[in-house]
This record gives sequence, structure tokens and C-alpha cells, in this order.
Amino acid sequence: MNLKFSERANEIKASEIRELLKLTERPELISFAGGLPAPELFPVDNMKKIAYKVVEEQGKEALQYSTTEGYTPLRQTIVDQRLKPAGINVTVDNILITSGSQQALEFTAKLFIDKDDVIICESPSYLGAINAFKAYQPKFVEVPMDDDGMIIEELEKKLREYPNAKFIYTIPDFQNPTGKTLSVERRKRLADIAGQYEIPVVEDSPYAELIFEGNRYPTIKSFDNSGYVIHLGTYSKTFCPGLRIGWVCAHKDILQKYVLIKQGADLQCSTIDQRITAQFMKEYNLDEHISKIIEVYRNRRNIMIESMQKFFPSEVKYTLSKGGLFTWVELKKELNTKKILEEALEEKVAFVPGGSFFPNGGNENYFRLNYSNMSEEKIVEGIKRLGKVLSKYY
Amino acid sequence: MNLKFSERANEIKASEIRELLKLTERPELISFAGGLPAPELFPVDNMKKIAYKVVEEQGKEALQYSTTEGYTPLRQTIVDQRLKPAGINVTVDNILITSGSQQALEFTAKLFIDKDDVIICESPSYLGAINAFKAYQPKFVEVPMDDDGMIIEELEKKLREYPNAKFIYTIPDFQNPTGKTLSVERRKRLADIAGQYEIPVVEDSPYAELIFEGNRYPTIKSFDNSGYVIHLGTYSKTFCPGLRIGWVCAHKDILQKYVLIKQGADLQCSTIDQRITAQFMKEYNLDEHISKIIEVYRNRRNIMIESMQKFFPSEVKYTLSKGGLFTWVELKKELNTKKILEEALEEKVAFVPGGSFFPNGGNENYFRLNYSNMSEEKIVEGIKRLGKVLSKYY
Repeated sequence: MNLKFSERANEIKASEIRELLKLTERPELISFAGGLPAPELFPVDNMKKIAYKVVEEQGKEALQYSTTEGYTPLRQTIVDQRLKPAGINVTVDNILITSGSQQALEFTAKLFIDKDDVIICESPSYLGAINAFKAYQPKFVEVPMDDDGMIIEELEKKLREYPNAKFIYTIPDFQNPTGKTLSVERRKRLADIAGQYEIPVVEDSPYAELIFEGNRYPTIKSFDNSGYVIHLGTYSKTFCPGLRIGWVCAHKDILQKYVLIKQGADLQCSTIDQRITAQFMKEYNLDEHISKIIEVYRNRRNIMIESMQKFFPSEVKYTLSKGGLFTWVELKKELNTKKILEEALEEKVAFVPGGSFFPNGGNENYFRLNYSNMSEEKIVEGIKRLGKVLSKYY
Repeated sequence: MNLKFSERANEIKASEIRELLKLTERPELISFAGGLPAPELFPVDNMKKIAYKVVEEQGKEALQYSTTEGYTPLRQTIVDQRLKPAGINVTVDNILITSGSQQALEFTAKLFIDKDDVIICESPSYLGAINAFKAYQPKFVEVPMDDDGMIIEELEKKLREYPNAKFIYTIPDFQNPTGKTLSVERRKRLADIAGQYEIPVVEDSPYAELIFEGNRYPTIKSFDNSGYVIHLGTYSKTFCPGLRIGWVCAHKDILQKYVLIKQGADLQCSTIDQRITAQFMKEYNLDEHISKIIEVYRNRRNIMIESMQKFFPSEVKYTLSKGGLFTWVELKKELNTKKILEEALEEKVAFVPGGSFFPNGGNENYFRLNYSNMSEEKIVEGIKRLGKVLSKYY
């Protein structure tokens, strides 16, 4: 066959990593590679009743087409239950329901990126966002991070260097992949920078509610006076990812563009899933559910950190994440974690090599560990096996 | 605000038509404007039991992330129940689950179109496809139709004129908007042309099973020897659109690209909706359900055609669609149906003006009527009102 794909499609290739990680689906493997929530925490009993009730009472509407913006009571629930407590004062008119945050990221790319445009992100950044953006052929400019997240002085340097940059992408809370959190002071400055430089700041906030220690930090959007901060949220990490319910919260002039993109992309999100989610949030308390998730994940993080202290060579560095799903491990500069993954797989343990999280490559001496989806026993055993592999290099 | 959207996003604008049609949401209005299935036919009682059962028995899996390609038993069901009877012999490896056909159309654009590329479609063509394609800034080349669908001699002229055209888009069965059907002979030729010119033919097939008269025509894909025919299907018109379950069926070399695009776009379709659909198709007979839909829609089409014969000026032409959801009305060349819509809305009846279905504009003397979503009484009354409006011009 002689297939003439678009330029962008020729660039979208199955990654080596994904091919390697297909191996992680084998049940005998201890995998710290994914980012999956713990399914044993899903509210299955309540959900089966809610699903029955929604179809019984709202069947004709729940199974029919509905509006592109999303089911209004669900948008209102998001405004009241998730955004107000995060200091974000908006109305339903600022909310579009998307198929998870991933779709919001893809729409962001479609909305802003022309080929060769510059976009700015943390170094490293979320692999799924990088891939969604790459399809629109931008140039990535990476801003280094320290323990308080993106370094704002470095960001401003880049903004002066690339005054036509299209947007700044950040995951301020328990970042994927590093587990790091942006300080409150920097959040304020980032919101100010958005207005000052007239550049959208895309605040991707899937993990913000999974807090193991201390209080929640205010969102960047809560400091937004200019309208340039676009806030992305999701129920995937605090409720059920299988329903694919996320949202964009933005100024009306921006949101209406997202709505038109959604219309062309897939018309709307699943009506039944939106109504099930809204009904669940009406009958049950998501905050209580989130507390249960936090307790389990906090224990798993503790076990993982303790095990790394015990089994990893003492020179290996890692993040003490204060929430979310991940910790980030740094090895000696000369080591390559893709190669080490091959050895780890022989020991039946998996992680994601860090190189893919750097849009411009390099940095092969890092890897990401997920602790939300493995039992405490498996975490201990898996880290022990990994420690054995790493010990060869130290 | 000084927003720097992408070039494509600046071109995506809310259409006048959509603004006008927002008025059609008023309940007192008789609307022939949408393309909605009749909700009274949704299998609500069976669906509530299925939804309960799926969450109860498969909750941990049904509420979790799953694979990008889609739920394998659902893909197998589509292969066995929907594609084999349509003469399409493929395996699950040729199937990707998409969020309705609309998402498959958007992915097709993303996969093939670079800015200024030529794509070929019927004149007129489906508005939702045109909008999805437009976001990737192609040039549309329109091929005229007669009562047997796209005229193949005209298509070949265009193929010689535009040898780098990226794909041919067609809705062969009960086309949206015209209600016309491509003849069997032309289907064969179109499949041959795909191979001969090495150009993908995108067969969009949402209405093919809603047949009021005669037997089903073989799909273009069933004649595909070259692998260049991409077949799009959906449960939206034969089951429940609110679940957003459609599919791409294509040669593996093409399908793998669609899968990578899906991964970046939204990771996957709703796990629970896919499992509910698969379970429904296992426990109930969709063909029997489709028979019920056909009976209702056939009556509605008959009533609409009879009413047009009775109430429309005798010079007005319309399609006698043999299936699907639409008929297509042609007025005198000098008339403008956008203007006539305004008058119709004053009489509390709505339709979609035809101009938007022509990607390069013009042809304002057509409009589309939908008969699937209004009761027989309302169809008679609505066509009577429309006849009153049209009579002023004849």
C-alpha cells in the first residue's frame, strides 16, 4: 500500500516504551509503570444502584444525544463541589465536560498550536500531554524545576526569549512524573505572568485533591485576574476513570472555542456517564470517598519510600511526594533507565523510564514509580527486586 | 484579552445556522432540524438491568481505565453481528472503538489532511463531517450526485485533476442530507478506484441498517481488495446515541495510526459504556430492535412524503428516501432557505437550510427534513405549516 498520511500522522509513532510496557500487562509482573487508581476503592455497590436508577428514571434523556457543553447539573456540581472549594469562582458557562483531562489537553493543542509554535512546559512533564501536543508539531521549551516546582525566573527568561509562545503548561500539584508541588508564591506569580505576558497558563490539576500531608494549596486559577488561566480537572483519579469525565474551566471567550472544537471532535461526552456521575455526586459525598483513597495511597507511598530507603543504593535520589500517585527516581547521570528496565523486566518488575517525559529528549537517568495500584506486599517485593537490579550499578 | 489562537481555531466559528437552530430547542416548536433517533424506542427496561448487572459483576474492570483499541468482546460483537452480515470479513484487529462516528471523522481528518490538501466528497455532504474536516484546513472538491448517489465519471475527472487528493468521503446509504443511496454497481467501481488510484475511500455508514424497502446493498468495504476502503459504523442510530459508541474498520496499517491518534485524543472510550453495549448485544437481539425502529421511521417517512404531496407547492422537489432519517427538499434556484427558515420559525416549525451541506457554499435553495424524531401528528401539522410558508413563493 502507498499511504499518504498527514505530516503530523507520520510523526506519531508507537513508542519503544509503550511496546516495552505492553509486557507489564502480564499478571505475574509487579508493575509500578501505570498511573491507574486502585480499583478495589471504586464504589461498585453504590454505582450499580445509581446506574439502574438513572436509566430507569431518566432513560429517554440518558440514552439520547445531548448538548456539547455537557449535562448542566453535572457542570453545576463541578462548580459547587470541586471548584468553589479550590477558590475558583465561576459559573456553569465557564465549564465544558471533556472525555477525561486527556481530551482537554488535545483540545488545548488544537486551539493554540500552529506548526512550529513554541509552547512552554515543565522539565520533565506529563507524557500524555507531550504526545497530545506533539501531534500539532510545536517546539517545546522546557523550564527546569526545583523542589518547589517550575522555577519562575527561568520561565521569565524563556518568555522573553520566545515572546510568541502560545501557552505555558503546568501540573502544579504532585506533578506527573516528579511528584513535586508548585509553591503558593509561585502560583501567584504564574497567574500574574499570564496577565502580564498575555499568555494562557494551562493548569492541569488531576491530583490536587489527593493530599497526604498538610492543606491543599490554592489553585493558580484562584489567583487569575486576567482570564488567562485555563484550569483542567477530572474525576478520573478521585472517582472512576472508566467513565471518562473531565472538564475545562476557562474564561468565556476561550471556553466557547473549546466548545466548538468539542462539537467537531465527538459532539459530546457520554450522556449516561454524565448523568450517572451527577446522580452519584448528589447522593453520596465525594470528599468522604476521597479521604478513603488518600488513606490507602498514603500508606502505599510510605511503604514505597521505606522500601527504597531499605533496598535502593544510598546514592539514589527520589521525591518524597506529598500527594498524588508518583515518585520520581534519579540515578547517576551515566545510567540509562531504558536499559535498566529490560533488566528489571527479567526480575518481573516494571517502571517507566524517564526520558519520554522530556519532550526534547535526553535525561535517560530518571524513572517514574507509581504506588497507587499495587498492594503493600507487592510494593515491598517490587522495590526489593528493583534494588537488586540497581545495586549492580552502584 | 489578546488571545492568539491557532489559524485553524480562528476559522472554527459558531455558524449562523447553529445560532438559529438553538431556537429549535423550544418545546412548542415542531422541529425537523435535528437528526435525533426517537427516544421512545430506546430499550430502557432492558438497559437498566444491563447497567446494574455490568457494574455488579464487572465493577472493578468497568469503572477502570482500559485499552485504547476498545473492549475486545465488543469489538468481536461488532465483527460478528454488524460487519459479517454486511459482507465485511475482518477480525477484531481491524476495529477501533470511537466516541461515535463523529470522532472517527475527526480522526480521519487528523490522519490524512495537511493544510491545503484536497479531499473529495459528495455535493452536498454531511455537515458534521465537513466541520470536522475543515479544522484541518483542506480544500474540498465536490462531486455531483444523481438519484444513484455520487456520479463516478465526475469523480474520476476530479481524481485526474487532483492526483494528490487525500481521500474520498462518502455516505453511500440514505445519505445525510439527501437521503440518496449509491447503486451497487457504483459501490464496486468505488472500491476498484480506491485500489487503482491508491486513495482511501471513507465509507461512513450510520444509516445502512435502517432500510424501509428492499434488501440491504453490499457495503463498499465488502468489495475492497486493496485495503484502501475505511468503513465507519456506529450504534447511535440503531441503539442509543447517548453511549457514544462507534467504530473504525480498516486495514491494519491504517488502523494502527487511528489507534495512536485515539491514544493522544482521549486515551479510550468509556469502559462502562463499552461493557454495557457488549452485554446488551449478548443478551438481546439488536436486529429485532432495528426492525421496530424501521417500522416506526417508515411510517413517519410515509406521513411526511404524503403531507408534502398534500401541502407543498407542486413544483417543489424532494427525495423519496428508502431508509435513514432524512429527506431533501429542492426549491426554485432563486430562493434562499436561510431566509425561509426565519419565516418558518415564526410559524413554529424548523428545518436545516441546505447551504451548509455544501462545503464550498452556494446552493441556498435546498433544505433538509428529519422525520425520525417527531410524532405522526406533528409531522402532518409541521409540513402543513411549512407548506403555508412555501406557498408564498410559488
